[in-house]
Amino acid sequence: MPGLDRAAGRPLHVQVADALRAQIRDHRLPPGSPLDGEIVLQERFGVARSVVRQALSTLVAEGLVERSRGRGSMVAPARQHHRLVQRASGLYAQMAAEGLEVTTEVLSLDEEPAASAEDRWLGGDRVLRLERLRRVDGRPLARIRTALPLPRCAGLTAEELTDASLHEVLTQRFSARPTSGRRQVRAVAADVDLARELETRPGAPLLLLEGRTQDQDGRPLEVFATWHRAEDIAFDVDLEAGPADPSGSPPPSPPPGREGLREAAEQAQLLADRLRELADREP
Amino acid sequence: MPGLDRAAGRPLHVQVADALRAQIRDHRLPPGSPLDGEIVLQERFGVARSVVRQALSTLVAEGLVERSRGRGSMVAPARQHHRLVQRASGLYAQMAAEGLEVTTEVLSLDEEPAASAEDRWLGGDRVLRLERLRRVDGRPLARIRTALPLPRCAGLTAEELTDASLHEVLTQRFSARPTSGRRQVRAVAADVDLARELETRPGAPLLLLEGRTQDQDGRPLEVFATWHRAEDIAFDVDLEAGPADPSGSPPPSPPPGREGLREAAEQAQLLADRLRELADREP
Repeated sequence: MPGLDRAAGRPLHVQVADALRAQIRDHRLPPGSPLDGEIVLQERFGVARSVVRQALSTLVAEGLVERSRGRGSMVAPARQHHRLVQRASGLYAQMAAEGLEVTTEVLSLDEEPAASAEDRWLGGDRVLRLERLRRVDGRPLARIRTALPLPRCAGLTAEELTDASLHEVLTQRFSARPTSGRRQVRAVAADVDLARELETRPGAPLLLLEGRTQDQDGRPLEVFATWHRAEDIAFDVDLEAGPADPSGSPPPSPPPGREGLREAAEQAQLLADRLRELADREP
Repeated sequence: MPGLDRAAGRPLHVQVADALRAQIRDHRLPPGSPLDGEIVLQERFGVARSVVRQALSTLVAEGLVERSRGRGSMVAPARQHHRLVQRASGLYAQMAAEGLEVTTEVLSLDEEPAASAEDRWLGGDRVLRLERLRRVDGRPLARIRTALPLPRCAGLTAEELTDASLHEVLTQRFSARPTSGRRQVRAVAADVDLARELETRPGAPLLLLEGRTQDQDGRPLEVFATWHRAEDIAFDVDLEAGPADPSGSPPPSPPPGREGLREAAEQAQLLADRLRELADREP
């Protein structure tokens, strides 16, 4: 850990708190891990014990550090929303299912020429561009930009999308159910406009989710980019079952042809017999 | 877009380039999208045409903007590594499969007491703590911290992990194949130490992947945190098949009890008959 800047105008305890806060925020010091004791911190930063104590008090007041009697200080557990990005269901449905108050403001909804490669993937010359801001319990969480295919989604209004799930509206009004697609996740620094909208500072890290979604028939349905305040969210991803062996050997395949079919028929017959047996036992 | 700071010491063309660069970097201006023309930019920033031209030349020189004859300027395509985070296979295997030169430096490898809740998930009082730095084509891409269970993984050496895949070593030496687990993805700002190791600036956005991995028998195998330089990487996630209906209605369940079992037995019988029929037709 580099030394502090003793010539700087900022007090030493503020600098110590800044250094520890940065390590807590980026999980170098993970949630639930013990902080070094006051003596160790005193030596590492080369400051008086009172400076370390003042820095720790600041972090306790911010909710980043917890003190427990006898066990010293530890990093507080992370309090973030979680979003399962493998699911087609959107942020609205996932947050609402947790019982959180989710609101959605429509910033704009306009017909525009297809400008980028992503827009053109939707298949037409024009797109419906939807710009939204989503808040959870009153605090901005996500800024969402969506392009929808025209004329397929023509007639959508800002009113029906306010405080609503876009996916639900698409399903109900256009019988277009978001079904498949690929997502990309990136970390980016907020530009001035995004920082203002998400009530954070320019340069603050944002978690960006971009994707294309197809409907139940495989037709292009939406292209979107969603910028999330990084402090407030974590994306969850479950590992896929499948060949995890780095040597990549596939699972054994069944014997081909007539023999394989007879084997499968035999298994189905065993299953049918077993189910009948269970049905007979059921009162 | 907010106005420029005319009183600042920095030239106007630098400020215009900064504003556009920030919007390109955070995908507010997505890769492949057209930039506004010089006249529009001139009016938006309230500067002379020559200032706009100088700013655009800077971005072209940086590779962020491309000029095409007749079609104006557009945002250059993103050039990033992609990592499929649903797979248990690690960064090393995925990058090496792309033909990239991947090197891995072992910064430290130590036996330590289990300090955090994550460490204790591994099941013992002590862990093997592995700190690594991974470079792709000579440039730092990822800083990896891993905890492994002791005594199960005792005897690992820094030599065998240098320029190697940890997962392959675990599979070969301990017959422990990384198989299942959950990942979390976050965007964080680099602290001073991570910034130095990843050769970026403090506060720069990093893409953090954390996870727990179990082996083929479901036993805890590793806990890790990997900080990636955000500019150089995107995570890919495929949507899962499954109920995507945002109304969240579960599939219709079979009737309970005896009746349900009889129905299932009937279906299994139909399947068995059909498979036998196919087997008989097979030459």
